[in-house]
Order: sequence, then structure tokens, then C-alpha cells
Amino acid sequence: MASKLVKNAVGRLVPTEINGKEQVPFKGIGKYIPKGKKAAQPIVSSSQFPSNGNKIVGSLKEALIQAGISDGMTISTHHHLRNGDLVANELFKVIHEIGVKDLVWFPSASFPCHEPIIEYLEDGTINRIEGSMNGPLGKFTSQGKMKGTAVLRSHGGRYQAIQDGEVHIDIAVIAAPTADPFGNANGLYGPSACGGLGYALADYRYADKVIIVTDNLVDFPAMPMQIEGNYVDSVVVVDKIGIPEKIVSGTTRITKSPDRLLIADLTAKFCDAAGLIKDGFSFQMGAGGTSLAFGNNLHKIMKERGIKARFAVGGVTKYLVQMLEEGTLDYILDAQSFDLDAVRSMRENENHKDISIFHCYDYHAKGNYTTMMDIMILGATEVDVNFNGNVVTHSDGYLQHGIGGWQNCLHAKNVILPIPLFRDRIPVIRDEVTTLCGPGELIDVIITERGIAINPRRTDLIEKTKNSGLPIKTIEELKDEAEKICGKPAKPEFTDDIVAAIKWVDGTVIDVVKKIKE
Amino acid sequence: MASKLVKNAVGRLVPTEINGKEQVPFKGIGKYIPKGKKAAQPIVSSSQFPSNGNKIVGSLKEALIQAGISDGMTISTHHHLRNGDLVANELFKVIHEIGVKDLVWFPSASFPCHEPIIEYLEDGTINRIEGSMNGPLGKFTSQGKMKGTAVLRSHGGRYQAIQDGEVHIDIAVIAAPTADPFGNANGLYGPSACGGLGYALADYRYADKVIIVTDNLVDFPAMPMQIEGNYVDSVVVVDKIGIPEKIVSGTTRITKSPDRLLIADLTAKFCDAAGLIKDGFSFQMGAGGTSLAFGNNLHKIMKERGIKARFAVGGVTKYLVQMLEEGTLDYILDAQSFDLDAVRSMRENENHKDISIFHCYDYHAKGNYTTMMDIMILGATEVDVNFNGNVVTHSDGYLQHGIGGWQNCLHAKNVILPIPLFRDRIPVIRDEVTTLCGPGELIDVIITERGIAINPRRTDLIEKTKNSGLPIKTIEELKDEAEKICGKPAKPEFTDDIVAAIKWVDGTVIDVVKKIKE
Repeated sequence: MASKLVKNAVGRLVPTEINGKEQVPFKGIGKYIPKGKKAAQPIVSSSQFPSNGNKIVGSLKEALIQAGISDGMTISTHHHLRNGDLVANELFKVIHEIGVKDLVWFPSASFPCHEPIIEYLEDGTINRIEGSMNGPLGKFTSQGKMKGTAVLRSHGGRYQAIQDGEVHIDIAVIAAPTADPFGNANGLYGPSACGGLGYALADYRYADKVIIVTDNLVDFPAMPMQIEGNYVDSVVVVDKIGIPEKIVSGTTRITKSPDRLLIADLTAKFCDAAGLIKDGFSFQMGAGGTSLAFGNNLHKIMKERGIKARFAVGGVTKYLVQMLEEGTLDYILDAQSFDLDAVRSMRENENHKDISIFHCYDYHAKGNYTTMMDIMILGATEVDVNFNGNVVTHSDGYLQHGIGGWQNCLHAKNVILPIPLFRDRIPVIRDEVTTLCGPGELIDVIITERGIAINPRRTDLIEKTKNSGLPIKTIEELKDEAEKICGKPAKPEFTDDIVAAIKWVDGTVIDVVKKIKE
Repeated sequence: MASKLVKNAVGRLVPTEINGKEQVPFKGIGKYIPKGKKAAQPIVSSSQFPSNGNKIVGSLKEALIQAGISDGMTISTHHHLRNGDLVANELFKVIHEIGVKDLVWFPSASFPCHEPIIEYLEDGTINRIEGSMNGPLGKFTSQGKMKGTAVLRSHGGRYQAIQDGEVHIDIAVIAAPTADPFGNANGLYGPSACGGLGYALADYRYADKVIIVTDNLVDFPAMPMQIEGNYVDSVVVVDKIGIPEKIVSGTTRITKSPDRLLIADLTAKFCDAAGLIKDGFSFQMGAGGTSLAFGNNLHKIMKERGIKARFAVGGVTKYLVQMLEEGTLDYILDAQSFDLDAVRSMRENENHKDISIFHCYDYHAKGNYTTMMDIMILGATEVDVNFNGNVVTHSDGYLQHGIGGWQNCLHAKNVILPIPLFRDRIPVIRDEVTTLCGPGELIDVIITERGIAINPRRTDLIEKTKNSGLPIKTIEELKDEAEKICGKPAKPEFTDDIVAAIKWVDGTVIDVVKKIKE
């Protein structure tokens, strides 16, 4: 589809229209001020629902038909079951049987397990995915095989888009590890327990119709009510919604790579030198091996000095749970539980609280938690000499990851990216990122195994760490060092066809991904 | 204001317009099916809020001015601090100082402690109250002294009206026993602890601006987050928001009146004879002395027979807490905590859960909890021979009570009204209720100290209890008995001026209250 291209505030050419909808090009951080009212669900009458509170219908097909499924609708799912999710594949199998076409699949994230859905993208059941495209779905998209244009949003951007009415969900299908016949549901109990269900909040609060799919039906009231039955149209009981060992990890592990351990060590030392580790501080880190190693170092420093953190937002693993249980952390605010210890802790400990994306990340709320965070540990596939970051494409140009909470987290007080200087002999620091997902002005520190680069804007951090003995370098120095070892990396080649748009946290378009020239 | 009057589905003459807004006359139970979308808040950007999460402003006046207070606005408050509330009076004192006029005060309930607000009704600061009018405010209204027409809604009807956009709240002022600088708040801790804050849910989710007023500021995150700071504009810290001993009772007490004890005993026996007390059943009762006596009898029966209830919705007192703690009750769903034991239990016991009016009462949700309830114990100021009920006016015609959750609760499976046959020698059963708040088709059983009347529609209950030995009579027999003792009561005399409208749970107008002829 030909659409006018305009240069946005970070110099990227972006279309003014995507999938027939008008777009606002990225205007700069905090520059786009939205107008109007939030989206809202249709008003219903409880007189049209069963007075005994029993909303169970015989099958997913029946529920979808009752919800009025038809061509062109937007169908949402959440990703709390991660790579163990059995519901999304079954959903589109059933939809395919019904024979509806041209749908938008709007997951909060997709995983390699969703590869079977490619069949429905190919046969016209699904027009496009608006959500993350990992692994096989990413490759499919980069090859230009998706009918519509993919739209990638951060977790917070997804909430914002629903809330602001940019994406109208016709039917939300919510996989629930435990539910009652009224539709109250949670992720804490049952064979497919996953912890919280906070990614589904916008879905059930804004979708026209809400279907709960569970394999663990309990009597009303299913407690805690992470999903509120008063928003639910129907409940479907199935044999199995997920594969437990692929939903949560039994063991999340600290990296064993010497380089990654070094990066984690430098990161903790940097935070310390910069004075960020102090009573009442807050932090967030991912569940990757390097992040966990950093967390371990952080915990050691805190215990040695008797320092207590006020809260951590996660992506929660046993390492955070340990801090909570050992008293070095007051609260875990948990948007996603990555292992069984996290699920157990959320069940048992009232200071381990499930929160939603609205709370931690929604840019169009009256504030959110990220701007309050002292230390934010993030990754990236590429960073450039202007500190711009990429998390969705690899240097080969293929779409391989979702944005996750990355863009949202960039709003924290100190954004630190502990990343290797190169991966598979391809330098991570580039002249220009392949896809610009986050503007450099929000990225403060890059920490590699061969040195630390501080964003020149952060004169305070430069000042605080200048006598620390840490290997502080310029980002250009780091880039040169990598290129000396690996050579100057080749740029990927693209056609002019736009296969995906990258949204910023405020709904504006910050970049696009083009079709790979193969 | 002259407005056309039409006869509604229960034969009452109601206006087609109130306070300049078009009205739908009551159409019958479940007959009015709403159209359109729910109301929605303006979209905001977090970039316009403090990035450190600190929303504290210097005073309530500053917060109101920052919220853009102006003539004609609707200002809402909640009633969790009950007769110990200090915030609403202070609020209107400050508003009066600012000099804004013609406001609508939209409390979830008012109490005798709010008598000082009469001054602001008289001087034009407040045009009208849409909410309950108790004691002095009720008298003021009945005397026709309020400028606008009062609108009374049930708790659920208040949620419905906000949700459906019938009432747009410009500024919600939420008294919070505990809050953090971001605006997260709860009622569980602090000197003015009151339990849950569920009545304020619609207020903060739908109001344009939200102000938290607290006397117990804690560090972020205030947990549990009964109020979510992401919806809050500003936080005001004051010395004292309430008078603890008037907020929650230290001791809620079972009646000592022999007549009331007899009524409570008959009620328990009736429920038993009708087969309503069985494993997994659910119930709700008020916090009045007769209700508590009934609860006590119910508990005895349950313990004797090893029967366990699944859930109770409340209005919670130590008697319900005792059932939870002794294992005769699985869950308390608590919309309002009436005593200190209830507050403590909500803090300590995860099976004692704060819920909102949306969950238990909203008629325009996808179901609510009341229709699932097996035993519903309610009161009434009057009942008539057609089982219609009145809860807002006394037989002298004065507006003296709010509707509370009464209309909402009428939707339960078995609605039982244990009421005295007469009060102060005035019969409670009348030929026709003074104000019709609930249609007789929803009221199943009237239990008095001199006999029990079952609604002829409930042939099942009549059948089940016919050989029970209980004093089953017709409602006419009960009325005759009362009139033999007290004489036929005089009807109150009214002018033609409508001083208040009574809304049904779906937003339609079921009756009006007229000015007293004094």
C-alpha cells in the first residue's frame, strides 16, 4: 500500500498511514499530547446474563459464535503462558473452522510455539499481527509474507493503544490457569499456573466481548480475582491450556559465561560508584543470565552494607524473591512471573503483588512506575554511537523480537544497558541502529566487557564515576574496539516495502521495518 | 421546574425531565436495555505529571484550583468514613472560600455529620445533592429548601450512573486513611482506618480529576492499592480526615429487644424450613441488631449441622468475621467494614476480600454477585400489601434514609425482610408505600414478630414451609393485625413540588418524593 512517508523527530522516514489508519509520526519525547476521551466498552444489562452467575458455554467455537465473531475483527490474547501457550493456536484453528477471514491477531506477545499460526496468515484467516513477532513469525514477516503491515508496540504502548481507542478489541480470549463459572480468574493456581495475569487487563476492560478459557474450574469466587468476572461474557473449560514446563521455568539461571559475568560485575560496580545503591532505592532488571548475575552482585553489596531497596518491578525470578524473603527488598511489583518461585511467592507473600501494564508502563496515565525507578537494567540487539537502541531486529535485518517493556523502561532515572561488545563476531555498537526503537537521549550507560560508555548528556554520572577506576570510554572508542576485532559489519539489504511499523509509547510511529532483500 | 409527568410501570407519576436532564420512566424489572458506550476519562500524558511520582500539593484549595474547579461542576465524595467523615465538610468550606457556585454534591452517602453542608446549600454554593439524604439533610430536602431536585440512587445505581455517563464527575475528592505521594491509597491502615474503599472505585475510574486527601502518608508503594495512583491527579496531606470512633464501631451489637430477637429467630427458622441453609450457600445481611441476631442463629444452625457457606457479601461486622475464622464461611466479599474486627480481618485474612460496588451491585455489568445470593436479609421503612418496599421516607413523609444497596440486593434469589409489625405505634405494612423504592415482585418474604407473609408469586417457598409450624399468614392479615393494635395510620400530606427523584438500578425513575405540607 503506497502511503506518504515523512521524516519524524529522530530522522526516520515513516508512513502517514498504516493498514488504512492515519498515523502520527514520532514528535520527540513527551512532545505528543493526546486529546479526547479514552475508549469505552458498550453498556450492557446484567439482565441479559445468567442470574445464577454460570457463564460456561460448551466450547470455544460456541463462545466465539456467541460473541459474534466475524470478518475483519481484532482478536486479542495474552502471553502469560509464554512458550507453553496452547490456547492461541487452538483459537485460530477453531476460527479457521468457523471460516472467518481477515482478522487482526493482537497478542501481548507471540512465541516460537505460535508457528502453526503462519498457516492462518497464509490462508487469509489472519490479515496481520499487531504484537511481537518472535522466531518463525518474525522471519515470515521480514520476508514480506504477511498480508497487512505488522504493528509492534511496547507492552505499555499496547495498553495505551487499547485505552486510547487506537486498537479496538472485538473479542479478548483470555487463557486462565484458574477460573470460576462467573469468569473471575487468576494465574496463581492450577496445572498451568503462571503468576499474575496483568497483561490481560486492558483486554478485558476494553474489549467488546471477553472469553475466559480455563483448565481449572473452581467454585465462585475464584480468588484472587486477577480477572474480574463482571467483565466476562463466557467461560470455556478445556483439558489443557498450557504446557507447564514451558510456561514457567523450574530454574532461572545466572550466566556462566566469563564475559557476561564480567559485564554484570562492571554494572554493579558502576551503580555503586554512581551512588545509585542506597536505602530506599528501586530497580528493575530482566530475567536473562547477565541481568540475574547483576542482581546477585547487587544483592551482595546490599547485604554487606545493610541497604534495603523499597521496590523492584519485574519480570520476577527466584533471585528477586530471595531478596524479598531475606529482607533486602520491601516490595515486588510483579507484571510477569518467570519461574515457579515467583509464582509461589506471589501466592504466599502479600508484599509480592501482581500489577498490570497500566500501573508500571502506561504512558497515557497520570504517571506510571517506571519514571520513579532508580536503576533500570535493559538489553538491546544494537546500540549506535548516538546511544539510540534497537531491540526488534538483528543486524541481519530480520525481525526477531518484540519490544516488550523496553521502550517503557527507558523512562527510568538511570537506564543502563549491559551488553556484549559483539555477538557471533558481529559488533553490537553501530554507526546507526538498523531499527530505531528508543532515542539515545533516554539511554544513559552502555556497559560491555571491554568498557563503559556514558551518554554525554549525563554529566552527573560522568562526574560521579570519573575517579572510580572503572574502564570509562567513549562509545566511539567501544565501537572502534569491536570493529578492530570483528571488522566493520555489513549493513543488511532491504527492499522499499514496509513490513512492520514500530510505535513509540505514545502511539506515534518511531520507525519501520522493511522487507529483507533475499 | 414544570416537567411532564408520566405513569411508569409501577403506576407512579414521574417527571420526564429532572434538573434539565431527560429521564426514562421505570419500565419494569430488566425491561430497560441500555444502548451506547460507557463513559470514559480524558486521555492524559504521563509527561504532564511529576516524573518522581510525587503528586503532593500544599492544600485542598490548591488541589481544587489545580483541578480547575468552576461553577456548576459535580464533586464526588465517598462515605467509608461514615459519620466520622471530616473531609466533605472541609471540602465545601474550602470551595465556599474559592467562591464557586451551583455545584452538584455527589456523595456515595451522606450522614448526620454533614449537617454543616446545609449552609452551602442555602447560599448557592451547592445546587443539589445527588446521593442519600439522612437526618438533617433529609429534612431540609423534604421541606423543599434545596435549589435543585435531589436524585437518590442505590449504591449500584450510583456506579451505573457514573459508568453509563448519566452523571459526569468533574472532581472526585477521596478521603484515604493511607496514601503514598503517587496517589495509591487504602483504608486498612492509619488512624482513620475504615477497611476497604470500594465505594470510590467509580469515582476515581471515571472522574476527570481525582484528589486524594490523607492523614497518613507513607512511602510509595502504599499497599494494598485499593485506589490506584495512576488515576490520581494530586495528593493532599491533612492533620485528620476522620473521627475514628465514628468511622467504625468498636462493638457492633446484637439486638436485645425481645420482639426483634423473635423476628430474628423466625427468620432463621424460615430459612431452615425453606431449605436455604445448605452446604455452599451464600448470604448477605445488614449490620443492624436484628440482622446480627439472625446471623447468630444462622451460625448456630450451621455449626450444629456442619454446614459451610461459600461466601457472604457485606456490610461486614465481627459476626461474619467469626464465621470466617471458625471455618463456617469460605469467603467474605466486603464492600464496607462496619467494625474494627472487620478492618483487622481484611488486613490479615486473604479470604476476606475488599470488593467494589461494581462487583456486587452494578446492574449494567456482565452480571453481578447479588443475583447469585441465596439468602438476602433486608430492612424497609414500609412495605405494602403488594409487597412493594420503601426505604427512603418514613410514614410521616420525610426523606430520612438513602437507598444504600437495598434495590441492588432485591435481585437475590430469596429476599427476606425481617421487620417489626409497627414502629412507634405506626404500622409498617401499608395499603400503599409512601415512596416506592422496590417493586413487590422482587420481595419474597416479610417476617414480623406476629407472623410471616410469603409473596404469592413464591409458590415454591409457600409449598416448602406449609407444614413447618411457622406462623405463615397473608400480608393482609399482618396489616389488619397491626391496624387492630395501632389504628389505621394517617397518610402524610404533600404539596405537588417534587423534591427528590428515586432512581431504579438501571437509571430509570421509579418514584419521586414530594415536598411536605407543614
